[in-house]
Amino acid sequence: MRPSSIPLVLVALLFATSLMARTPPPTAAEVLAASKPEEWRAPDPAHTLVLELDAQRRVVIELAPRFAPNAVANILTLVEQRYFDALPIVRVQDNYVVQWGDPAAGTPEARSLGKALPKLAPEFTVRRRDAAPFVKLPDTDTYAREVGVVDSLPVAGDGRLRWLAHCYGMVGVGRGNEADSGAGNELYVVTGHAPRHLDRNVVLVGRVLDGIQHLSSLPRGDGTMGFFTQPASRIPIQRIRTLAELPEAERPALEVLDSNSASFRQLISARRYRREPWFLAPTGRLELCNLPLPIRARNAS
Amino acid sequence: MRPSSIPLVLVALLFATSLMARTPPPTAAEVLAASKPEEWRAPDPAHTLVLELDAQRRVVIELAPRFAPNAVANILTLVEQRYFDALPIVRVQDNYVVQWGDPAAGTPEARSLGKALPKLAPEFTVRRRDAAPFVKLPDTDTYAREVGVVDSLPVAGDGRLRWLAHCYGMVGVGRGNEADSGAGNELYVVTGHAPRHLDRNVVLVGRVLDGIQHLSSLPRGDGTMGFFTQPASRIPIQRIRTLAELPEAERPALEVLDSNSASFRQLISARRYRREPWFLAPTGRLELCNLPLPIRARNAS
Repeated sequence: MRPSSIPLVLVALLFATSLMARTPPPTAAEVLAASKPEEWRAPDPAHTLVLELDAQRRVVIELAPRFAPNAVANILTLVEQRYFDALPIVRVQDNYVVQWGDPAAGTPEARSLGKALPKLAPEFTVRRRDAAPFVKLPDTDTYAREVGVVDSLPVAGDGRLRWLAHCYGMVGVGRGNEADSGAGNELYVVTGHAPRHLDRNVVLVGRVLDGIQHLSSLPRGDGTMGFFTQPASRIPIQRIRTLAELPEAERPALEVLDSNSASFRQLISARRYRREPWFLAPTGRLELCNLPLPIRARNAS
Repeated sequence: MRPSSIPLVLVALLFATSLMARTPPPTAAEVLAASKPEEWRAPDPAHTLVLELDAQRRVVIELAPRFAPNAVANILTLVEQRYFDALPIVRVQDNYVVQWGDPAAGTPEARSLGKALPKLAPEFTVRRRDAAPFVKLPDTDTYAREVGVVDSLPVAGDGRLRWLAHCYGMVGVGRGNEADSGAGNELYVVTGHAPRHLDRNVVLVGRVLDGIQHLSSLPRGDGTMGFFTQPASRIPIQRIRTLAELPEAERPALEVLDSNSASFRQLISARRYRREPWFLAPTGRLELCNLPLPIRARNAS
């Protein structure tokens, strides 16, 4: 760099700063519209499930092997063994969860595949360094010392450990009273206000990328905790497959905004301080489960 | 009191304390089971609405005149004028809101009753002393300096002002971009994760006491923000009445746990530190919108 160029750089910098001060920062919609194709990633077909209630109602779930490798491996084994096919949704609790699995779980009539499952040491948390890069949110959280995003998933932490957080759309492993009593043969999706008191009490294994409305709009169960008391009221699942098992033409073509991208960081800022004309009092705050984790149809850019 | 009785009181106190140390504090279910009849109150029939989708699907909404007197008065006028009868639900947005009103709002075809409505100065906040007694929650909140409960409603505050908080089941007044553009002729219910960024941006007027599942399980709207693009997809409302207008026999018989009661304070403690055997890691924290605000059928005690 020639010495004489320094003042020019300063002038350019001042000019740029003054421009920045005049252009309002982008809204969330503007951030997404301006994002680059390389900031989006396709979900891994081997770790993404398609749950079909029928041909029209498909729910796409991305698993998170980084946070729960053993539970995810077990779920993939069950999918491979067709364990879930023709099992029903057994529980729809308003403002809480939708849950499916073997209605006979725990009885002698339980499906043999389930009985053969190993007990799994619970994967409630991971070490801090195993949940990185961590895009930290700047605001306080009621439940945890730090909250942020890893792999486009909501994560909380205490400085030493980190864990997936129970936000809307997260998928967890039902269990009994014992910590190791969840093998992945009973799964639930959060369909209500984030029940963050479940964090570190249940193994979370992923999140719904698409089609959650097919679960959240189901008729509520009539029994305690939203379980259906009549077998006829349960909602049958046609099948669960990995994306990799489906013929290319049948795979939902989705992509996820990479939480390590520049656009994702801009999105956080756009959501903390809402600049859409409708907002009269932008809060300047953002709670973990109110941060959108954008998904779009591939080729949408 | 005779001087010699003092030691006896002390002994009794020590004995009671030692008993308390041995008995585990009650769970939420135990707190409710032990609550006294006088800790429950019936909602005010003049300020409680019954929205009927049909005879089976009734949604009960308690209005909060203390927080939004003018908006509540306007809504009651509209109910009296039968403004809402046969108007539809126009918007069902997953993880957000269900909204009803005149689909033609803002056009020349809008219902004449609506056009005659006054513009209302927005009631986003009240003075601190007008939202008391305030049962403060002990944990931090992402969005506000203090959070707690007034009249069994979720409330946030900044020390000087207080406002109703957008928790699941809260009812608000839809508006356009101007602060005074919501007259109460378009109403929404929160049916997803608490959108607390709407606090102080919209006038909240009450909360659903019963029947929210009839709204939250509706098919989602196919258009932008969950609006229905086809008029035929909208869900008709049969009628909205105050409880006072209904014959005694048709009134839903509900009661609300008084947030100023001893049982309510115990409930907060029971929910902060979950003692049910299922919980492995009780958080010791409680976020505002995860606190239940109990309702029960009258004569349930």
